[in-house]
Amino acid sequence: MSGRAHPDVNPVTDGGDLPIKSSPHRHKVGVPPKQNMFHDFMYTFKETFFHDDPLRHFKDQPKSKKFMLGLQSVFPVFDWGRNYNLKKFRGDLIAGLTIASLCIPQDIGYAKLANLDPKYDSSFVPPLVYACMGSSRDIAIGPVAVVSLLLGTLLRAEVDPNTNPDEYLRLAFTATFFAGVTEAALGFFRLGFLIDFLSHAAVVGFMGGAAITIALQQLKGFLGIKKFTKKTDIIAVLDSVFSAAHHGVRILLLFLDSYIVKNVSLNHINMAMQWNWQTILIGASFLTFLLTSKFIGKKSKKLFWIPAVAPLISVIISTFFVYITRADKQGVQIVKHLDKGINPSSFHQIYFSGHYLAKGIRIGVVAGMVALTEAVAIGRTFAAMKDYQIDGNKEMVALGVMNVVGSMSSCYVATGSFSRSAVNFMAGCQTAVSNIIMSIVVLLTLLFLTPLFKYTPNAILAAIIINAVIPLIDIQAAILIFKVDKLDFVACMGAFFGVIFASVEIGLLIAVSISFAKILLQVTRPRTAVLGNIPRTSVYRNIQQYPEATMVPGVLTIRVDSAIYFSNSNYVRERIQRWLLEEEEKVKAASLPRIQFLIIEMSPVTDIDTSGIHALEDLYKSLQKRDIQLILANPGPLVIGKLHLSHFADMLGYDHIFLTVADAVEACGPKLSDEV
Amino acid sequence: MSGRAHPDVNPVTDGGDLPIKSSPHRHKVGVPPKQNMFHDFMYTFKETFFHDDPLRHFKDQPKSKKFMLGLQSVFPVFDWGRNYNLKKFRGDLIAGLTIASLCIPQDIGYAKLANLDPKYDSSFVPPLVYACMGSSRDIAIGPVAVVSLLLGTLLRAEVDPNTNPDEYLRLAFTATFFAGVTEAALGFFRLGFLIDFLSHAAVVGFMGGAAITIALQQLKGFLGIKKFTKKTDIIAVLDSVFSAAHHGVRILLLFLDSYIVKNVSLNHINMAMQWNWQTILIGASFLTFLLTSKFIGKKSKKLFWIPAVAPLISVIISTFFVYITRADKQGVQIVKHLDKGINPSSFHQIYFSGHYLAKGIRIGVVAGMVALTEAVAIGRTFAAMKDYQIDGNKEMVALGVMNVVGSMSSCYVATGSFSRSAVNFMAGCQTAVSNIIMSIVVLLTLLFLTPLFKYTPNAILAAIIINAVIPLIDIQAAILIFKVDKLDFVACMGAFFGVIFASVEIGLLIAVSISFAKILLQVTRPRTAVLGNIPRTSVYRNIQQYPEATMVPGVLTIRVDSAIYFSNSNYVRERIQRWLLEEEEKVKAASLPRIQFLIIEMSPVTDIDTSGIHALEDLYKSLQKRDIQLILANPGPLVIGKLHLSHFADMLGYDHIFLTVADAVEACGPKLSDEV
Repeated sequence: MSGRAHPDVNPVTDGGDLPIKSSPHRHKVGVPPKQNMFHDFMYTFKETFFHDDPLRHFKDQPKSKKFMLGLQSVFPVFDWGRNYNLKKFRGDLIAGLTIASLCIPQDIGYAKLANLDPKYDSSFVPPLVYACMGSSRDIAIGPVAVVSLLLGTLLRAEVDPNTNPDEYLRLAFTATFFAGVTEAALGFFRLGFLIDFLSHAAVVGFMGGAAITIALQQLKGFLGIKKFTKKTDIIAVLDSVFSAAHHGVRILLLFLDSYIVKNVSLNHINMAMQWNWQTILIGASFLTFLLTSKFIGKKSKKLFWIPAVAPLISVIISTFFVYITRADKQGVQIVKHLDKGINPSSFHQIYFSGHYLAKGIRIGVVAGMVALTEAVAIGRTFAAMKDYQIDGNKEMVALGVMNVVGSMSSCYVATGSFSRSAVNFMAGCQTAVSNIIMSIVVLLTLLFLTPLFKYTPNAILAAIIINAVIPLIDIQAAILIFKVDKLDFVACMGAFFGVIFASVEIGLLIAVSISFAKILLQVTRPRTAVLGNIPRTSVYRNIQQYPEATMVPGVLTIRVDSAIYFSNSNYVRERIQRWLLEEEEKVKAASLPRIQFLIIEMSPVTDIDTSGIHALEDLYKSLQKRDIQLILANPGPLVIGKLHLSHFADMLGYDHIFLTVADAVEACGPKLSDEV
Repeated sequence: MSGRAHPDVNPVTDGGDLPIKSSPHRHKVGVPPKQNMFHDFMYTFKETFFHDDPLRHFKDQPKSKKFMLGLQSVFPVFDWGRNYNLKKFRGDLIAGLTIASLCIPQDIGYAKLANLDPKYDSSFVPPLVYACMGSSRDIAIGPVAVVSLLLGTLLRAEVDPNTNPDEYLRLAFTATFFAGVTEAALGFFRLGFLIDFLSHAAVVGFMGGAAITIALQQLKGFLGIKKFTKKTDIIAVLDSVFSAAHHGVRILLLFLDSYIVKNVSLNHINMAMQWNWQTILIGASFLTFLLTSKFIGKKSKKLFWIPAVAPLISVIISTFFVYITRADKQGVQIVKHLDKGINPSSFHQIYFSGHYLAKGIRIGVVAGMVALTEAVAIGRTFAAMKDYQIDGNKEMVALGVMNVVGSMSSCYVATGSFSRSAVNFMAGCQTAVSNIIMSIVVLLTLLFLTPLFKYTPNAILAAIIINAVIPLIDIQAAILIFKVDKLDFVACMGAFFGVIFASVEIGLLIAVSISFAKILLQVTRPRTAVLGNIPRTSVYRNIQQYPEATMVPGVLTIRVDSAIYFSNSNYVRERIQRWLLEEEEKVKAASLPRIQFLIIEMSPVTDIDTSGIHALEDLYKSLQKRDIQLILANPGPLVIGKLHLSHFADMLGYDHIFLTVADAVEACGPKLSDEV
């Protein structure tokens, strides 16, 4: 079949180096020496779970040093703590105070999203734990909007927070506990890569949808509506908003109609209308203030502190204003009552048995995963900015322990907060000490200052939350996704519309499903390409990308762009046969010499399994019947090793396996000229 | 940074061909012309769902021809039927008679596996439907052992066939109906690739385990045990077998002890012992006969008919023997009663509402998928042998319709049977007419011959089933899997032990889970390799495979062996950084020039998404801080297009993107020599 003689010596089958008859012109494809089976397995295992080689520093160290390194590894505070100095503390102090001023009003609002009393504040205990165990220098810890909303939605599906507040609270702590356990377990068992399965596109869509949902929820506080839907989808919310308005407008018309009726005061109208103009006025002015301060902060990086302190300033001014004017008597809703005191122990409130246990676990796993996704994304972003490495798995253990401890001290799920971390970063934080500062400020606030929030209008909290979630709607990212990959954009929009038209869970489910579907698509339908020779080189490239590349008559070269596994082996075989069929039709139409050689460029085929080998065998047999010789070019080490073990390489003949496509084409030459 | 000047003209951003300043020496990387978005989407869609281009034949045909082609496409019988002739019929007749003789005793046994009465025979209606709609010429249709067992196990978990035979039967028909719907839907929506997700290794393990489970179940009939466990795991079954024996042995000892006691006859002992020696004798002799005939058939391909007719001969001889000797009075269990007549309509028995509907759907989906896996594997095997193509999706529609029709005519799930198809193939079948012949013979048997099976001993059926499932234990395949891929072998053994120690469902679950885990592993942990120059060539290859390859001082070349997607982008970035770190340590130790260039060989990177681009950006920034220049070699059409759209290519500079590694290294040259 081939232009070259068969080698006289058959390859030995003991797995050692193969005594292939070497040609003076070309290099042979190397069969790597047989690996020890244990070594092979350990390599795969290591690359899967320990690819970052976490024990690298422990090598060749005395025992005492190893202990110290181990301690530092679990509690990085022992590592950076030794080099801590006053200069660093200055940076951390400023950053800590800044984020504390940002976090206090946010926390009250986020607790409401989770249908919890603001006294269950997650900005005191969790940041302390994280400061000792976390490896990121920039993350600021606390509750975040999306997780609070998700937790609130999932919990309310199980227990009504109004009729059963105690059970609701207990389930919230249970979910927080298991969210922490999930996070810590993923880190401990080095399964952190699982969160990579949420694609960037799906996360962008999900976050955008969640931000809009959260903003819509704030319309209740923002417009001062009393009766509001419990659902989170946009239709139910807008229906609530406009039916409240409609009701008011009707009374207003009635009022105008019968102007003479003295006992209908403007105040009555206001009550009936449900939209409260004083509330709207307060909310709108402060939202404008917040947005303006954010705009200023963006324009000049030095003024980053303006948007950071704006929420606290808004709270102080508006609270003072309401207290002076007693606007609460005009229907402006206020926070009213906040318990004073630090978080009590809540260990005894966690369900460790009963039918709420399973529910708590389910909710905790979902909330924990979403919280992780956010924290890890933030950690990576800031680590890339300052060029240091964070250990994803260690980070997860820290976040997990933090939530477990939090669940025992009346906190709900906390994680890395993007807005807070950005402020922390810009305020010049040096280490996790800024989290400790924030935590102390929160503690002092809880102990002494909570009564001052009595007259804070709810509208301000709504405005602060709306302001906080707006950056989550990342239109730039969505446009980039649209440009780069249409399928990704479908995933992004699927998650987005899932959240706003159905619910947070449905949106999350869509995001995860589409992400998985994309992975499956990727592994079942690998790309293949027909290659041509780029003129005046020995390089063969995709003829679609390089239209100047020319095909050698009588030879069809196809590159398979993926490992050949069970999930795609049939597709790859069928696709190659279809390329051949199409090419044969073209050749026939143009009366060119018939195709005698099919070269498969195997460079991208990094691995093959038994299904893949069967597919190659089937292809080889089918080609043989049509008198076409199959040739492989540049199989990788794993592939040639397996082709050798399975005897397919013997069947094909080692003289039909070449190092490069150019070598293979050259070898086809003599035979082709014979026939012409 | 680089040795070459920046191009004067910046690439235009309208997506057209890029006016890159061309070097006289080297070819530039082509940015493919911007694809129409719709075209792009349609291409992906087509490759995913219509990669086999099923409408190819319809192109440029008149309408009447299109109608005929459409009809032929749904009912291939109209295609091959027109060229049917007497010679083909001769082949089909012989093959049909041979498989009929094989199927009749098998069917009775398999129905027992599914806890159904043998009159619910699936070898009459389904083969007729398949003959009209199927595209394989060699598949023989009927019930198969594994699906019968799976169906029986799943059904019994819901309804007890002894106490509620009617409900059990109705649920069986419901499951069959939805198995058919599942199969047809997968084919119709072109989701056939989903069954490719069961890896070959998992299937080998699952089938082997199922075969052993089925053989163990046959010990009841084979040993003549009356009380037998309902479980399928090996421990429960062996416990049943030996406790029956133990009980007998105790009575036997008692008997020997008190030999004088006249009223304890050998017969009584036999009853007590539960193992019936006459039964064992009959079973063992005929099993030997069957195995011998199989051995003869394997030795000489011309004698293939001996193992094919051996079961029927065994049934006839043993039935006659029992009838003559009235061995049934000695405790040899016989079939006793078989209803005469053809399959009645069972449409009204299918549950279309009520709580059994959901159960029926669940069982149907599982059984349907497993049945499909077997049928498609068989179809592919024989198609590859005779070198014709079968259309997987069309095949699924045919199998699905066949089971839907079957469920309405008192049949349970049928599929392509391996043993029967092999006999069909060897008996020289030409078309699906052999299935019709078999179906007619089964019909005649049902109508007239069933009473003759009254005295057939159950032991013979057990022997026939044991003989039929033995080939499913494919030790050769397991050895090959062990050699080729250790992880695959773990999957294989997981499925195998799951089936034999737990249950068929658990085994199936393990098989599917491991298959999926392997896919996930594959996409999260792609391989990377450090490349070196093969002496006297411009070829760069993995230095592990080609130890003679040498690295260029000051340059590190890394090949990424997979598309860079969200699922692996972080890993790829971290892994590249780790390669760099390791290399830098080596370089430092050997006092070689420091690494100034990091070349990423992108040939195998077939695609990239926004997460991947972010990872490259992060890598670029981090390298810049260390004064290392990032260079890309040979990005494919999709990748360069996306890098261009996302402006990463601008950030990196088009003069840092090369066609080959050799070009890139050459370009690094001047800069490197500057420093040395």
